[in-house]
Amino acid sequence: MSHKLLILAQDENKYRALIEEARLVNLDFATQPAENVDVVLGEPSRIKAALASLPALSWAQSIWAGVEPLLGSVARRDYILTNARGVFGGLMSEYVIGYLLAHERKMLQRLEDQNHKRWDESDTGTLRGKTIGLLGVGSIGAEVARAAKFFGMTVCGYTLNSETSKHVDKYFHPLESDSLLSDRQTEQQAAPLQRFALQNFASGLDYLVNILPNTVDTRKIVNTDLLNALPSHALFINVGRGQAVDESALIEALNQNKIAGAVLDVFEQEPLPQNHPFWTTPNLLMTFHTAAPSLPEDITKLFIENYKLFNAGKPLKYQVDFEKGY
Amino acid sequence: MSHKLLILAQDENKYRALIEEARLVNLDFATQPAENVDVVLGEPSRIKAALASLPALSWAQSIWAGVEPLLGSVARRDYILTNARGVFGGLMSEYVIGYLLAHERKMLQRLEDQNHKRWDESDTGTLRGKTIGLLGVGSIGAEVARAAKFFGMTVCGYTLNSETSKHVDKYFHPLESDSLLSDRQTEQQAAPLQRFALQNFASGLDYLVNILPNTVDTRKIVNTDLLNALPSHALFINVGRGQAVDESALIEALNQNKIAGAVLDVFEQEPLPQNHPFWTTPNLLMTFHTAAPSLPEDITKLFIENYKLFNAGKPLKYQVDFEKGY
Repeated sequence: MSHKLLILAQDENKYRALIEEARLVNLDFATQPAENVDVVLGEPSRIKAALASLPALSWAQSIWAGVEPLLGSVARRDYILTNARGVFGGLMSEYVIGYLLAHERKMLQRLEDQNHKRWDESDTGTLRGKTIGLLGVGSIGAEVARAAKFFGMTVCGYTLNSETSKHVDKYFHPLESDSLLSDRQTEQQAAPLQRFALQNFASGLDYLVNILPNTVDTRKIVNTDLLNALPSHALFINVGRGQAVDESALIEALNQNKIAGAVLDVFEQEPLPQNHPFWTTPNLLMTFHTAAPSLPEDITKLFIENYKLFNAGKPLKYQVDFEKGY
Repeated sequence: MSHKLLILAQDENKYRALIEEARLVNLDFATQPAENVDVVLGEPSRIKAALASLPALSWAQSIWAGVEPLLGSVARRDYILTNARGVFGGLMSEYVIGYLLAHERKMLQRLEDQNHKRWDESDTGTLRGKTIGLLGVGSIGAEVARAAKFFGMTVCGYTLNSETSKHVDKYFHPLESDSLLSDRQTEQQAAPLQRFALQNFASGLDYLVNILPNTVDTRKIVNTDLLNALPSHALFINVGRGQAVDESALIEALNQNKIAGAVLDVFEQEPLPQNHPFWTTPNLLMTFHTAAPSLPEDITKLFIENYKLFNAGKPLKYQVDFEKGY
């Protein structure tokens, strides 16, 4: 059976060249949405915009990890959605380790010294012996944990219930009984327990890194309570999703020096609005959803691997559960 | 036999407390230079100043890796000099990886973006797949090599003749015959060969890191020829000794964009003079001999280990060869 692929990505030409090189069997290319397109590869927002013109869609491979545009209770679900996984861990680790080192090594202070011709011999800090807390330990979190162990840190992981990474020294979970959190009926009684577990997790950390996907359970999980529980020397890094952070609470925590600093790559609204207070909040460094770019070389490998399974009628890797949202 | 220890370090009290805690046998403390002091622990420059008042000196443990003040043809050599080794590798690795990530992740450009409220989605680079060249692969270089491999780099090592680190993918040496370099009589004919080997080493690098000690063979090894051999996108980091760099040549290379940038922690003259052109050279980041601080906890462990050998009459670890200079 022949398959028709539509590529919906900014780097379309790069992707096409890389896929053509692989000479995949039974695969033709479409250049625009059409009735006979059964496979798409691309950015979730562009896939969403094309969905109505893709009646035969059987499989969509997202080039991003986050697929929010394709989720929601009214979203079409009559196709298999796979996302990009296993390719961002290394890039995210570089980002997290890079900014932790910038913090410990006081890079910006040294730059100030240099600009003022100050020979400043004051000692810098080190990652060794520090404790890092990961909110979410999926494939990306596991890679960050591995890098943290490489640099001699103690690693705490906060997950719903999974304990799959051997690089996490201590796991924390929302509730004493694993089954409660997703049971909506007990949400009211669960909330205080979740708060307790999170505060317990946060209180011993030097660094807190959010890597959670955006789901109903993770929204504003980084709130006043959690930020208050962090030690005042703690640094917060968000490489997950902006929705996980109560942005007003974070601004207050930074303004009042409740924590030492924050590094944000993701925001509730992107691009960040020009009048957003984050632009001028003290001790806050921002990047612009660039922590782990989707490199066509990486994503194409993943697409080819999945296409071979797809063409053989086998189950695909990295399938998204429309219900869970990741 | 009883031993008398004099501590000559800024952190004297910290060192004394840590050593007292260890309750070493046969060890008393002196508070100033005296005839019966046979052991000193401290900074090389302070040890040098006290040498004339230490007639019974048998062993000096430096808290630094570099011991230049205690070397030279007229220096006293009737005692065992040991330096600090094996404790700086992790700190140096943090420094090198931190500044490589700052470079690849365009941290300063992102900061500029933030200051100008610019949402800049342009992609950042990655360490993965890059080639790093280490000038000198001793215990520190081996640790930097290990960190480079962790982040997926190819590691080239330039050494006199040793090939001891398994984390170095390819070694380069000054000459085809290992024995020539230290043979002064052949220096004239050796020089062109050394230049060729260095240029060959440099031409394939994305990053060049100097970790060499300061010896007659390493002075100004980073000169115009070597800098010209580097690709124009290369970054140079010096965590070894300032004497290894021809500073005028480096300033010229940076001013003419022959290389992408430099990060310097060490200088020919320290503190760097106020009128030194480095303060205002473009694409140059400086720190102030703070890349790998001597942490009393680390150094004391090393001293205690050596003291036990000393007290037992056994050979000490990390002995400096007064002739070779390291």
